[in-house]
Amino acid sequence: MRELLAAAPAVVRTLNIRRGDERRFAREVEQVRAARGAVAVVDDAALERLAGRGARHQGIVATISHFHYADLDELIQQRPDPLVVIDGVTDPRNLGALMRSAEGAGVRALVIARDRTVAVTPAAVKTSAGAWAHLSIAQCGNVVRTLEQLKERGYWVAALAPQGTVSIYDLDVTRPLVLVLGSEDQGVRPLVRKTSDFIVNIPMRGRVASLNVSVAAAIALFEVARRRGLASRGTP
Amino acid sequence: MRELLAAAPAVVRTLNIRRGDERRFAREVEQVRAARGAVAVVDDAALERLAGRGARHQGIVATISHFHYADLDELIQQRPDPLVVIDGVTDPRNLGALMRSAEGAGVRALVIARDRTVAVTPAAVKTSAGAWAHLSIAQCGNVVRTLEQLKERGYWVAALAPQGTVSIYDLDVTRPLVLVLGSEDQGVRPLVRKTSDFIVNIPMRGRVASLNVSVAAAIALFEVARRRGLASRGTP
Repeated sequence: MRELLAAAPAVVRTLNIRRGDERRFAREVEQVRAARGAVAVVDDAALERLAGRGARHQGIVATISHFHYADLDELIQQRPDPLVVIDGVTDPRNLGALMRSAEGAGVRALVIARDRTVAVTPAAVKTSAGAWAHLSIAQCGNVVRTLEQLKERGYWVAALAPQGTVSIYDLDVTRPLVLVLGSEDQGVRPLVRKTSDFIVNIPMRGRVASLNVSVAAAIALFEVARRRGLASRGTP
Repeated sequence: MRELLAAAPAVVRTLNIRRGDERRFAREVEQVRAARGAVAVVDDAALERLAGRGARHQGIVATISHFHYADLDELIQQRPDPLVVIDGVTDPRNLGALMRSAEGAGVRALVIARDRTVAVTPAAVKTSAGAWAHLSIAQCGNVVRTLEQLKERGYWVAALAPQGTVSIYDLDVTRPLVLVLGSEDQGVRPLVRKTSDFIVNIPMRGRVASLNVSVAAAIALFEVARRRGLASRGTP
């Protein structure tokens, strides 16, 4: 909650606080009011209902504005770089974690496969720790076609996979870059791999075969940012 | 399950399979038998009980050997490098994710604070995707005293915190290194920070203030491994 309010107080429609806890959450109330949100003092039963069955809360629950997807064509026209394409992530917590990692690495735009990836659900929003409010997210119907379109516009398409043939530390980051992430179980689909310019791996140094998708994405995206930062400082 | 069996079939005490699904899991049965584990064919109700209330399973549940902690002094004597010290992680899934990230980055040993960090629970084991079987994990009663002890043995102690004064990309990785990770909410405690030689940050490139602890640990540990790899190849 603190993360959400610090990152994006304006997305809170109503901040619901347990009766008796008003002073404890004085700062949160102030932040939401300053951003023109509403504040409601409610009883325990109402709070439980708002949080959702079985969800934990600490006496405070925010209801947020409906999530708006960006238009795919408009998003592409803005030439976001890097652009992250998600094809097959099914756990909303993984999607949320991915949003947090990507935003922290400087990503501004995501494209998610409409039929194969979970939508931006409340669980994803919660796990994203406020990141969702700073991302343009579009859905796409056909990932291969979208990647072809991006290649025509000058992007290099890199799919992340444990079997990748190019190390992330050797990837050429000078061109606009699309990073494609596959499902938790199966990774990037063969057809999507075939459409990609590179299959990129993160060299593993232990005995586990793979990383969680949000962790792998973070390592790749922070490495791209590091190398581009060096380049812009004139270091080879 | 596939991850666990590939990484560490020997830790499975009994592999429980739903009656009727024996052929579907023929490969898993073979792996467990080869590692001298038992296989049981059970009905749905028994499988539900084994999986635990509310947990999802796909017709297969492994019961594993009890988790054995390493002795702290013995662990330190082996001079693992880097060594990860966890002080305050309370979500078992975060601990498991951290174990997976750290093992993938080449870490062999963890120390967790007995009173402030969740133990290696079944949920942590599950999230770790088999990594737990390749890690020596010790508990410690007093984190500050343990860090002092490690410093006396020539380690440099680096605490990871968003307010850190040294970028992870500038950290000197030539000496044996302890990476200290704090809690999800509060990060590394002031006393622990004071005991550390460096407070290290990951330069954030977006608007979220911090990363998930397992993601931050992964970025830091993979960066340390990358730089040490360069050094061992003779590149400055």
